Amino acid sequence: MRLTTMTDYALRLLMYVAQQPERLCTISEVARVHDISEAHVMKVTHQLGLLGWIETVRGKGGGMRLARPPSDINLGAVVRGIESDFALVECFSTESQCALTNKCQLAKVMDGALQSFMAHLDEFSLADIRPRTNRSALVIRRMTVKREKTS
Amino acid sequence: MRLTTMTDYALRLLMYVAQQPERLCTISEVARVHDISEAHVMKVTHQLGLLGWIETVRGKGGGMRLARPPSDINLGAVVRGIESDFALVECFSTESQCALTNKCQLAKVMDGALQSFMAHLDEFSLADIRPRTNRSALVIRRMTVKREKTS
Repeated sequence: MRLTTMTDYALRLLMYVAQQPERLCTISEVARVHDISEAHVMKVTHQLGLLGWIETVRGKGGGMRLARPPSDINLGAVVRGIESDFALVECFSTESQCALTNKCQLAKVMDGALQSFMAHLDEFSLADIRPRTNRSALVIRRMTVKREKTS
Repeated sequence: MRLTTMTDYALRLLMYVAQQPERLCTISEVARVHDISEAHVMKVTHQLGLLGWIETVRGKGGGMRLARPPSDINLGAVVRGIESDFALVECFSTESQCALTNKCQLAKVMDGALQSFMAHLDEFSLADIRPRTNRSALVIRRMTVKREKTS
């Protein structure tokens, strides 16, 4: 069971851009950091732009940034927006060839499982998963050192 | 997001065999009904046998049947047993190439979503999803007609 590569890339792109709130990120930079082709990064940036999570600035010195705070970017919404394929099993498809389609309850049970999966993602935003920046890591380290000294 | 083809085939095979409790089913019969290659049916039958859900009888007139009652074959257990790939996103893999591995919380959130998915399947057995047989469909039809006549 896997999410599509595009959903994976979209989540990684959002996390990376969320780490650089003070500047614009470029397509080539994201592609290099994540070892993804620029064509894929362009495609996923375009989709995230259409869905209102990324905004781009054109021209020299241009790039992309989050269009809203990380806490306003819900993970369930991102996966629903980007994932193109939720056909867990054959009978989810409108062109199902399964001889048992409409006769068994598998699709109903699988759909319930998928709803449980999405409901869990709905509980989290980009702010909950973004990697710790170097700056925040340093602050935490300083706090630990201070605590050790005072104890 | 899809389950592997083998998991799909395993569920369909179990449902078909559960519909024929009074006789043995053959590889070629399951392959024909579900339009799956015999090689795939053989592979999935072998796996289901190893996991203790199917038993086979060799020789002329041989075939397969359920090794236990449908109510004892849990759907979560079948998916866990057959599904070979639960790497929802890149960072689930032990060979992950993601630059953010171990720095972000995505894997933890995705793992929680996967547990919710499986917990839903754990609530159901093969008995809950098996297709209605012609006989039981007839019984239900008779009961409906009887109710209509008495109302």
